[in-house]
Amino acid sequence: MSWLESLKTDTPEEGYELAILLSRMAVKKMQPDDDVRSRLRGVYANDADSLTMASQVVAINFQTIAQANKFWLDVS
Amino acid sequence: MSWLESLKTDTPEEGYELAILLSRMAVKKMQPDDDVRSRLRGVYANDADSLTMASQVVAINFQTIAQANKFWLDVS
Amino acid sequence: MSWLESLKTDTPEEGYELAILLSRMAVKKMQPDDDVRSRLRGVYANDADSLTMASQVVAINFQTIAQANKFWLDVS
Amino acid sequence: MSWLESLKTDTPEEGYELAILLSRMAVKKMQPDDDVRSRLRGVYANDADSLTMASQVVAINFQTIAQANKFWLDVS
Amino acid sequence: MSWLESLKTDTPEEGYELAILLSRMAVKKMQPDDDVRSRLRGVYANDADSLTMASQVVAINFQTIAQANKFWLDVS
Amino acid sequence: MSWLESLKTDTPEEGYELAILLSRMAVKKMQPDDDVRSRLRGVYANDADSLTMASQVVAINFQTIAQANKFWLDVS
Repeated sequence: MSWLESLKTDTPEEGYELAILLSRMAVKKMQPDDDVRSRLRGVYANDADSLTMASQVVAINFQTIAQANKFWLDVS
Repeated sequence: MSWLESLKTDTPEEGYELAILLSRMAVKKMQPDDDVRSRLRGVYANDADSLTMASQVVAINFQTIAQANKFWLDVS
Repeated sequence: MSWLESLKTDTPEEGYELAILLSRMAVKKMQPDDDVRSRLRGVYANDADSLTMASQVVAINFQTIAQANKFWLDVS
Repeated sequence: MSWLESLKTDTPEEGYELAILLSRMAVKKMQPDDDVRSRLRGVYANDADSLTMASQVVAINFQTIAQANKFWLDVS
Repeated sequence: MSWLESLKTDTPEEGYELAILLSRMAVKKMQPDDDVRSRLRGVYANDADSLTMASQVVAINFQTIAQANKFWLDVS
Repeated sequence: MSWLESLKTDTPEEGYELAILLSRMAVKKMQPDDDVRSRLRGVYANDADSLTMASQVVAINFQTIAQANKFWLDVS
């Protein structure tokens, strides 16, 4: 079972969650140690600019997923 | 009720507001503590580069939403 | 009257001006105090990297507006 | 006469030059003082990261212009 | 044999792996020394912002690859 | 003879090389002095974040070139 079976989601909100997963997966592949990532999360979660940068990665991934789902126009 | 029912908005201005919401939601999911986020807002709201970075995230999200709404061409 | 009635502009230059407006509006919504923004402008307007970052936000917004106007191909 | 009559150019190289112009124009509008910009250029032109950041803005603007010119496929 | 025969992949997950490869290849071409890159990896893998920045590059490359694969809609 | 005759390339790998060329050309136009650029290269080639930033510019340019080549789907 793949962690990324498809870019399709039923709703925009699920698409947003998938965008967050995509953003985190790159970090996980570069830093596989769970303890290190947990410690780093404590750092960036308390830094405004770090959070903004992370939000930007989510935005880029969300754009990709939204395109893949044709912006969920049939759903809305 | 989902916080993101649809990417469709009636007007460009509402689309812009939705872009801001999308930008903030990523931050909220990474830092759920309201007090911490409120404190951080006081920091970045007084730093020129922090505001520019945040404006960039809004720009990316607005691009996605504008595409979803076919740039509101029927409206204008 | 909305500050963003439409993404359509008559010319590329007007589209560029609209891109600047979009870039500034996000900052204004996060820092509504005119005096603070005026002070911050004095900071970033004298910093090369700050100006480059701000130029990048304009570039992203201009891309959106150019797409909305089908790159003004009929005009040119 | 507008500084941006059209996004159309005859060749990719001219499109690249226009991308540089777009990138610089945003800076000029935020810092209209020629002397200040000239001084800042001396700073960022000798800093690797500053140059990379500026190259990124050109890349975004070039993407827009390339799309507007349908990638100059008829030319090549 | 080219390191980049095609942008096509069978699955989204393979597309994501290709996005990581594209991101790393640019670094490799600018810093061909394996030992230096290995040392640098030890640095950025323990820095939250460095990881976020790297995740952003993957996101951009993944967008390109997803478009090339028409978002793997036939697969899903 | 132009340094950028066309965005078309025969293969994805050549497209990637062209993306690197586009990224470097902006830097060259802003810092024409070969010696200075050579010195700066020694700096950023040994800094993880600098390399990531440079990789990001390549990613954006590669997206443009991939679109221009319709993702080389006929080739693969």
